[in-house]
Amino acid sequence: MKRLEETVRSIGKPSEEWRGKARNHILNLTMPPWALGRLLDLAVDLAGMQETLELRVGRKNIVLMAGDHGIVDEGVSPCSREVTTQMIHNFVGGNAGINVLARNAGAKVTVVDLGVESDLSALGDKILHRKVRSGARNFAKGPAMTREEAVRSVENGIGVALALAPETDVFGTGEMGIGNTSPSSAILSVLSGRPLPPLVGSGAGLSPEKVVRKVRIIEQGIRLNAPDRNDPLDVLAKVGGLEIGGIAGLILGAASLRRPVVVDGFISTAGALIAASLAPDSAHYMILAHRSAEPGHPAMTGVLGKTPLLDLGMRLGEGTGAALAMHLLDAAAAVMKDMATFQSAKVSRGGLP
Amino acid sequence: MKRLEETVRSIGKPSEEWRGKARNHILNLTMPPWALGRLLDLAVDLAGMQETLELRVGRKNIVLMAGDHGIVDEGVSPCSREVTTQMIHNFVGGNAGINVLARNAGAKVTVVDLGVESDLSALGDKILHRKVRSGARNFAKGPAMTREEAVRSVENGIGVALALAPETDVFGTGEMGIGNTSPSSAILSVLSGRPLPPLVGSGAGLSPEKVVRKVRIIEQGIRLNAPDRNDPLDVLAKVGGLEIGGIAGLILGAASLRRPVVVDGFISTAGALIAASLAPDSAHYMILAHRSAEPGHPAMTGVLGKTPLLDLGMRLGEGTGAALAMHLLDAAAAVMKDMATFQSAKVSRGGLP
Repeated sequence: MKRLEETVRSIGKPSEEWRGKARNHILNLTMPPWALGRLLDLAVDLAGMQETLELRVGRKNIVLMAGDHGIVDEGVSPCSREVTTQMIHNFVGGNAGINVLARNAGAKVTVVDLGVESDLSALGDKILHRKVRSGARNFAKGPAMTREEAVRSVENGIGVALALAPETDVFGTGEMGIGNTSPSSAILSVLSGRPLPPLVGSGAGLSPEKVVRKVRIIEQGIRLNAPDRNDPLDVLAKVGGLEIGGIAGLILGAASLRRPVVVDGFISTAGALIAASLAPDSAHYMILAHRSAEPGHPAMTGVLGKTPLLDLGMRLGEGTGAALAMHLLDAAAAVMKDMATFQSAKVSRGGLP
Repeated sequence: MKRLEETVRSIGKPSEEWRGKARNHILNLTMPPWALGRLLDLAVDLAGMQETLELRVGRKNIVLMAGDHGIVDEGVSPCSREVTTQMIHNFVGGNAGINVLARNAGAKVTVVDLGVESDLSALGDKILHRKVRSGARNFAKGPAMTREEAVRSVENGIGVALALAPETDVFGTGEMGIGNTSPSSAILSVLSGRPLPPLVGSGAGLSPEKVVRKVRIIEQGIRLNAPDRNDPLDVLAKVGGLEIGGIAGLILGAASLRRPVVVDGFISTAGALIAASLAPDSAHYMILAHRSAEPGHPAMTGVLGKTPLLDLGMRLGEGTGAALAMHLLDAAAAVMKDMATFQSAKVSRGGLP
């Protein structure tokens, strides 16, 4: 618990001074005021985090947190739990969706076992081994994990951020865990106080009838465990997941180091909600990558008060949206570094302010 | 006129057979059905155009068409006309917004003088010289150009596409021309039959009062010239612009070669409207890059029946949105080329169809 408390305490706000310097620099670039829109907002955000106009975005690492979910026993996913392990081998093989898109974005992928059911020790140093327990328990029948396990999942995420930090400018979040839209919807409903049904979607492709059943099972889990919405660790422990705790920890760790963290879709944003509940200022370091196709995602981003960069109807997870959004960070950094000013290019501002 | 007619005649539909093959391949990739959303739609579109699953997107060229506008004399832009020429020197210098973002996307930039007022011959082979006339005329007082000049602007655009084709897999459109949101709004209003006022925006940063004046001036130009909405060349000639004709031509040329063309923002989409009016099937080869912040843009994309990929509040033009969207083409091609199938990765489909 000490690592978590210290990390939360060490998270500060981005620098308003450097945000202002970035805005001033941008207003001198050869274009109408703020004509590159959100790309420029992104540049200002990065400057405030990194306290420089020479934005560092070159070394990217998408950290893919993996864990299993006992609630899959209730039929909340069209996939069986063994797919989590199969997909981890696919990630290690280098040709899953996240591998392809991360390569395309110049990002590394780091797979972390936070709580996969099977024994992955044979994978050696191809993944990081931070298993807290073999799968979260079925939260329809009791808490997903103990409070201690929840803290450990978050602290393991913090530890991964600290360990990777010397070689990482920009973190991305990703996840794998069959069944993990269920705890994500549960976390969202509890932390936001909104009714559950509209926050539950088809996940990996559940039929509409089975989504109705999924709602009932998650509702049962929330009622049974009665998580305290003012205590994010209680929510994580009772209706969450180990990889979701890992994501929250990664975000907190990144924020404590003033590093940007590109948050992927629905499950990652559930982790971001836990992080923001534990340390509100951590939200300043989150860059929401994309609008997930899961119906609850707009409610999540609304709680965070942030708008995702992309909206491409994606719902794969793994960190694939984060990978795509990283191109925009490169573009923002390049604009700050290379774009000509009115003075340097001898262009008149005309009637521009 | 012969080149234009031949080009229009040679534009065919993309291959339904290859679109189907792409869909089948995608459904075998290790993810829930269509979980990468519009990235996969894009892959299908490209496969249909290129008649292969080995998508060719490596060699990208953003063709930046430049021209001046007499209507600037009426105060429709906060910038003076000399800025067009200053910006062309900025492009040649390599550090304008489009240069920075094109480099970031691995794209070349080809600047083409379709109708800049000043003499740019001193720039030699740093730009392509396809000047039809020194600036479009002030269309508030008469036609912007003759029908012959309009045809020549389109045919010059076609010629540029054909000339660059041997070294280009993907075209992008861009433009520079102080005042060119005015002809773009005019073209949109005439071709769509919609009332003008909501289709006119602040362009490079006009004050709200001056936008009202801009509406009046464009309305006057439309009334005076009475373009025939069923004759896109008449619309282009009377209330258009030379670089807009060049963009239309580039799109037609690319479509005749079955090459994808990434269409930038408001002015580029005005060129796309002319192209689609001349050859409806050319729309199949257009990839709309981004939602421009100009208020008329949604009406334009509605006419084309297409949704832009990005929505980042951008309104710079030059091809900057096209450059950003090109990352998504790379990503789509990488998914098709490298992503593992259920069989190759030994992943169970679970309950997936």
